[in-house]
Amino acid sequence: MKLSEIGELSLLKTIRKRFAVQSKDVIAGIGDDTAVIRPPGENLLVTTDMMVEGIHFDLNLITPFQLGFKLVSVNVSDIYAMGGTPQYLLLDIAMNRNKEKSFVDSFLDGIRRAMKLYGVFLIGGDISSSRKDMVLAAALIGNAKRHIRRSGAKIGDRIYVTGNLGDSACGLEILKKAISHHPPQAESAISKEPTAKSYPLTVKYKQKGLKWNTIAPLIQRHLMPEARNPKGFAKYAAAMIDLSDGLFMDLSRLCDESRVGARIFLERIPVSGRMRTVSSLLRLDAIKLACSGGEDYELLFTAALYPPTPPLLRGGAGGVKITCIGEITKRGRVVIDAAGRESQLKPSGYQHFEIQR
Amino acid sequence: MKLSEIGELSLLKTIRKRFAVQSKDVIAGIGDDTAVIRPPGENLLVTTDMMVEGIHFDLNLITPFQLGFKLVSVNVSDIYAMGGTPQYLLLDIAMNRNKEKSFVDSFLDGIRRAMKLYGVFLIGGDISSSRKDMVLAAALIGNAKRHIRRSGAKIGDRIYVTGNLGDSACGLEILKKAISHHPPQAESAISKEPTAKSYPLTVKYKQKGLKWNTIAPLIQRHLMPEARNPKGFAKYAAAMIDLSDGLFMDLSRLCDESRVGARIFLERIPVSGRMRTVSSLLRLDAIKLACSGGEDYELLFTAALYPPTPPLLRGGAGGVKITCIGEITKRGRVVIDAAGRESQLKPSGYQHFEIQR
Repeated sequence: MKLSEIGELSLLKTIRKRFAVQSKDVIAGIGDDTAVIRPPGENLLVTTDMMVEGIHFDLNLITPFQLGFKLVSVNVSDIYAMGGTPQYLLLDIAMNRNKEKSFVDSFLDGIRRAMKLYGVFLIGGDISSSRKDMVLAAALIGNAKRHIRRSGAKIGDRIYVTGNLGDSACGLEILKKAISHHPPQAESAISKEPTAKSYPLTVKYKQKGLKWNTIAPLIQRHLMPEARNPKGFAKYAAAMIDLSDGLFMDLSRLCDESRVGARIFLERIPVSGRMRTVSSLLRLDAIKLACSGGEDYELLFTAALYPPTPPLLRGGAGGVKITCIGEITKRGRVVIDAAGRESQLKPSGYQHFEIQR
Repeated sequence: MKLSEIGELSLLKTIRKRFAVQSKDVIAGIGDDTAVIRPPGENLLVTTDMMVEGIHFDLNLITPFQLGFKLVSVNVSDIYAMGGTPQYLLLDIAMNRNKEKSFVDSFLDGIRRAMKLYGVFLIGGDISSSRKDMVLAAALIGNAKRHIRRSGAKIGDRIYVTGNLGDSACGLEILKKAISHHPPQAESAISKEPTAKSYPLTVKYKQKGLKWNTIAPLIQRHLMPEARNPKGFAKYAAAMIDLSDGLFMDLSRLCDESRVGARIFLERIPVSGRMRTVSSLLRLDAIKLACSGGEDYELLFTAALYPPTPPLLRGGAGGVKITCIGEITKRGRVVIDAAGRESQLKPSGYQHFEIQR
């Protein structure tokens, strides 16, 4: 059944029922002119992020469930990047009236899965039709006792990143190059997690030795990224940013805001073994993916060298891998390769409106 | 110059400079992962509204300045409808990279004019490219000491509306039918308010006696609606909603939420003389425009009959015209015409995803 047969009011009713909020801090949720909430703390964090069809996502590659999940994750990632706790979500959905209701249901399932994971309530939003492309936006409200800005980096701070970089960008390349066909939209409600069946490898790459077990986590990182919760190390961070447009681009932003420089050691940048394997098979530049691929949704932060902080020395906190990749300097942005050669760090990464290569 | 030549980062920089916030309650504005604000009060109001090209607006009819102004107004209208004060704005902008920078500048001018009018600060947002249609969304945060919900209407309450209804819908009809050509986008930075020069009447309607002075306020109400501030009467209101999808549709929503009925007297619905004049010349049904035209951005509220409230009896408060159009009943939604005949109120008005006539 298509949205044109259901109508806006009935869709709204469904959403309202499915996302009913049980919280004494939500005085009015979906169904009034505005939501009414009790402020969750001293410092309110507010962010918004859009996802536009044909720009941020391709419905031939991502299922509606994954799309819903990702929309929430990318917004949560911004709240986490401030050291905060996400709490209240508003959704803007614009889609063509020929969209199937099953698509929307699956999309909402994905939203709900993410909301549960992050402990977030849906309190409002707006639904619209669109002539062609789907446009999604979310606004997210959170709070932080102590918020961590991009501008807090001090000369001498060490620079850390969570997880591995480039997995997501590599996952996208796999989806574009090594998969013979993509999960049909109708199947989407079932294929919530990628399975070998819904993402069959092309004969060419099968023969080259590419295995489902190798690619699955990379695809998953691209299609359904989980935002990194900095709970275990936020108290040590002087400055923080989430990596959405690529390490070099986002590090440059942090340096701009802090009015400092940076020195990065290329061989310290954490790259997963499977990402290296796949890159080599697909003839991709693993380092380039890690430095400029984007959509990592990992966190980059700086912390003072003294006093020494065990979780950072240990390289992990709260189950999150942490790697020191360089240090904050007075000025300049420099990359040092394995041979000790210095070069200028070029803030390449995703920029809207640029003519894409 | 096109957006593709400027790039996202430089556009962001411009916006950040132009919208710099001077307020001790805004701890971090544009330029970090999230905005950080001190909660403005006990009860936080949060709303979001989208405007999609081809659905909500036609760039042949509206200038970018008007579009920016309207985007803020429609969101402020929701905060006003809760009896609140709007404070913090976040903007989502998705547009094609071939858009001219002058378009964006003019759009931002319109945003700024509205922000000044309503006393709102821009604290964040997101910019994206889009393949074709422009999509705009705003999230707005406000506060209310006492918020007025849709659900507060009591049997016996009188039903009031502000201003005149149908002016905006009539303005849209004029733009579609009686204007020979529309303001070119390039002229948009100048034509902030409609002028006879930029909206020339067709020969046909000129000969029929249509005058610029008659149509200007109707066009203006459609292109650059000002949200109604309920300051002067909010303390009397038991339930309130803003009229965006048409009187009958929005009244039905208020009745649904309050679990009550309503009786409306058709001849009491406030309609401007100029709207009647134009409707007659353009062969439009003035009453239909007033009841189901939509985009009025007036307020509908209910108030108890006792104790008598002078501003409501007087028919105005704080410069805003107020008209009693009916009363809340136990059940049923009934319209009574001038001859005293009763009929069922049909909640017709704009619904997304419906096949448009």
